[in-house]
Amino acid sequence: MNTFYFSPGSCALASHIALAESGLPYEVKRLNFAEGEQRSEAYLAINPKGRVPALVTDKGVVTETVAILGYIAQAAPEARLAPLADPFLFAKMQAFNAYMASTVHVAHAHGRRGYRWADQETSFEDMKNKLPQVMSECFRLIEDGMLEGPYVLGEHYSTADPYLFLMSGWLKSDRVEIADFPRVHAHYRMMLERPAVQKALAEEKAA
Amino acid sequence: MNTFYFSPGSCALASHIALAESGLPYEVKRLNFAEGEQRSEAYLAINPKGRVPALVTDKGVVTETVAILGYIAQAAPEARLAPLADPFLFAKMQAFNAYMASTVHVAHAHGRRGYRWADQETSFEDMKNKLPQVMSECFRLIEDGMLEGPYVLGEHYSTADPYLFLMSGWLKSDRVEIADFPRVHAHYRMMLERPAVQKALAEEKAA
Ligand SMILES: N[C@@H](CCC(=O)N[C@@H](CS)C(=O)NCC(=O)O)C(=O)O
Ligand SMILES: N[C@@H](CCC(=O)N[C@@H](CS)C(=O)NCC(=O)O)C(=O)O
Repeated sequence: MNTFYFSPGSCALASHIALAESGLPYEVKRLNFAEGEQRSEAYLAINPKGRVPALVTDKGVVTETVAILGYIAQAAPEARLAPLADPFLFAKMQAFNAYMASTVHVAHAHGRRGYRWADQETSFEDMKNKLPQVMSECFRLIEDGMLEGPYVLGEHYSTADPYLFLMSGWLKSDRVEIADFPRVHAHYRMMLERPAVQKALAEEKAA
Repeated sequence: MNTFYFSPGSCALASHIALAESGLPYEVKRLNFAEGEQRSEAYLAINPKGRVPALVTDKGVVTETVAILGYIAQAAPEARLAPLADPFLFAKMQAFNAYMASTVHVAHAHGRRGYRWADQETSFEDMKNKLPQVMSECFRLIEDGMLEGPYVLGEHYSTADPYLFLMSGWLKSDRVEIADFPRVHAHYRMMLERPAVQKALAEEKAA
């Protein structure tokens, strides 16, 4: 059994969707961010970083979205969630996911968690103001090159797709119009139809 | 042949060391950041993100340190740069590397590239002031848990080691005393002795 720790509306949704696609057995555990449950002693024993997602497997804990997505794909090869047989194509998927984690997610976080990197209210305001521009620049690169279409890697679905879906869903709150990126928009709508996406969203609501 | 694009003193050193360990054939190409060569038309055709590292392989370009490190390990299995046969251990390595890329490297970047996320001089100052605290918190987690010792994953060397070595080497400029983290410090000194580390450092100087 795998236990998946998440918080609704967080980046954990990408891994959650991949889990739902994978056919692996899992249960979900919701952390209440409003009550600071991610910093509780019990959770810090699972993930000392105090963040979601975390996937507790029979062998131990996996953290970090990029690593969890790669792990799910490798642990459930029959679900074909990654081009596992080709190191170059696998690296392409990992590069997309690493860009999401190290650049796009980080950009988004500046809109609400500026205190991670600064102390002054004026800095937080400054970051918030710049957010739409920074996110737009990221999505311009995605729209014009990274998203091959219809899926991120082209004809084949992979773990890069739920990760892009997640970030696309954040654009509105970042004051960016998804319609300005027609290929990203089409990808988002296509993803919404997927049973695994609906399953993960329903599980987040129910938990 | 592989062509590796780097800039001296940048995060590319982690991938460069892994290449030197791998036995794969490669040549290095230096970008002159002072002249903005990372944003030249020629380089943007290789990596539209305008960043290093980028590895041009026979199959295409791989970007993002996390993906390049995983790729090198998979492309040169005989060099044993990752626990390739065990998806859980591979995920542990990837999780460490993803933490470096999405949290530690990002924290460091706030000391000199605050303009990525804000516009005001006062915000840049604020970020710079907080930098030692943020980097220290990251290295506290590394020292107390992530670095199993002697290598990041314990007894076996992996691509996580050059990545940690790189970040440890940045601490001084971030106004953090590496000696405050004795296990990290021992790891750093051990890495300095490795022939592949010396080879990569020499190639960066000569390029
Ligand atoms: N690099 C991590 C980032 C994880 C992360 O920042 N998660 C956020 C939710 S989107 C979180 O747990 N925030 C809680 C907090 O900051 O207290 C990953 O990609 O998994
Ligand atoms: N997420 C990327 C980050 C790459 C990155 O930020 N590289 C820096 C050097 S450490 C760079 O190219 N900076 C040039 C610039 O910002 O113009 C990775 O892990 O490879």
